[in-house]
This record gives sequence, C-alpha cells and structure tokens, in this order.
Amino acid sequence: MAETRNDSRGDIRSDARAGARTVIERYWSTAQDRDWSAFGALLAPDVVYEIPQTRERVRGREAYVRFNAEYPGDWRVTVERIVAEERRGVSWTSFTAEGGTETGLSFFTLGDDGLIESVVDFWPEPYEPPAGREHLVERY
Amino acid sequence: MAETRNDSRGDIRSDARAGARTVIERYWSTAQDRDWSAFGALLAPDVVYEIPQTRERVRGREAYVRFNAEYPGDWRVTVERIVAEERRGVSWTSFTAEGGTETGLSFFTLGDDGLIESVVDFWPEPYEPPAGREHLVERY
Repeated sequence: MAETRNDSRGDIRSDARAGARTVIERYWSTAQDRDWSAFGALLAPDVVYEIPQTRERVRGREAYVRFNAEYPGDWRVTVERIVAEERRGVSWTSFTAEGGTETGLSFFTLGDDGLIESVVDFWPEPYEPPAGREHLVERY
Repeated sequence: MAETRNDSRGDIRSDARAGARTVIERYWSTAQDRDWSAFGALLAPDVVYEIPQTRERVRGREAYVRFNAEYPGDWRVTVERIVAEERRGVSWTSFTAEGGTETGLSFFTLGDDGLIESVVDFWPEPYEPPAGREHLVERY
C-alpha cells in the first residue's frame, strides 16, 4: 500500500496513485474537521452514496457534501480499522455524539483517478442474541 | 494479491502465503458446503469470534466450528464483496434462509501462518431513515 507522499502541492492530484487507504484516512479526517471543501475534493462529481438498511441513495458530489455537512449533532468520528486494496477499501468507525456511540461500516470504491465513486454505509445496531447457543458463547 | 496456486497437495499449508482473499473465499465456500473439517482447517486453534452487536464471543476452533455447524436453518450464503490485504480482509455476504435475506459483514485477521485468528461479525438490520434529509436523498 502506498503511503502519503511528502508533496508540497498536497492536493488530491498528488494522491491519485496513493491507494484507497490514504483516501479513506483523508475522508474521515476532513469530515472530523468539517473541512467540506477538502472532503468534497476526494469525491468524483457523480459519486453515489447508499445506505442499504434504509434504502437511501444520494447522488452527486454537491448533494453528498451537503448530506454530511448538514448531519446533525456535535459528532466525533474515530477510525477503528481500515482494510484497503488499491481502488477499494472498507472502514470501521465509531461515531460519538450526545446519544452515545454508533458503529459505521463503509465500503469505498475509487476510480482510476483516485476519486471516490461509491460509498456504501452500514449502521449495525445492538440486538439481543438468539437463544440456543449459550453453551458455545460468552458475553462481554 | 496472490491467487490460489495449482498445488496437488491442496491443503491449508499451500495457502499459507496466499493472502486473506483466498482464505476468506475458502471460508465461505466450505461453510456453504457444510464441510466443517475444511472450514476448521482454516482456523487458528485459539481463534476468537465476536459479534459486537450482541456482545457475544466464541473462543477456540472447536467451539467456533460447532457454532457454525449448529447454526439453525437451511441457509445459503452468497459473497457480495471481499476487500483484502495480505493478512486482513472484510467480506460482505448475503444469507438467505426461510425468513428472508440478511447482510453479514465480517472482519478477518490472519496470522503469519495464514490461519484465521479473529473474526468480527456485524449483522445490520433495516431501519427507518430519520426525517430531515429528504431534500438530498432518494429511496430505492
């Protein structure tokens, strides 16, 4: 996996061959910083964002930046894990706000220019374990 | 990413340097085939399985093979996507049984010997979208 290079220009073009890990790290750091200009510079103009659990879809860079910028609450995001290939990656993040901490799982696809073309987000919620497997399982 | 090699022995040892993608593909194909011997051969003896949503944990190869072998229902699993590095990977799968189709998201960590040391599973459920973002979102 390529690392971020020390490039005095520091713009998205210098990340075009940096691989998905670098882009995903920057995606979350710019979101945390509410730096929506830098966040938007990571996105392809026709980026598509989907949440399969709600069957919601957002199309295009402008709408997707607004979707994030308008997201309510004073949330903080922590990256727990990134697994990345050259053009695809997954992040496991924790979102903390007034209501507590939620887990976000995001699948990214990048184009050959290094811009994010697709994000698919999952938000798994706690649930009660089914009965019948207590003999194999501990709770933590 | 290394591919599965044509190795007449065909055992787990031949996959030790094959990378997480090959191991994850085999994990799901052996589970689908209910080939619990081959499934178990992919696991480290002290493998740890966790479901953060229920805070359940299963420790050890024997218990974890049983956990899967005893899982009720005539389920079928389809791999939707795998993102993998050399020793870590993520799978997005669809489980179909009598009750419908569920999404499973699994984070794998392998040891240097290519055996699975950790699996963390998420099972995101459908939910209703929050109000206030209809101007940016379409439903599908």
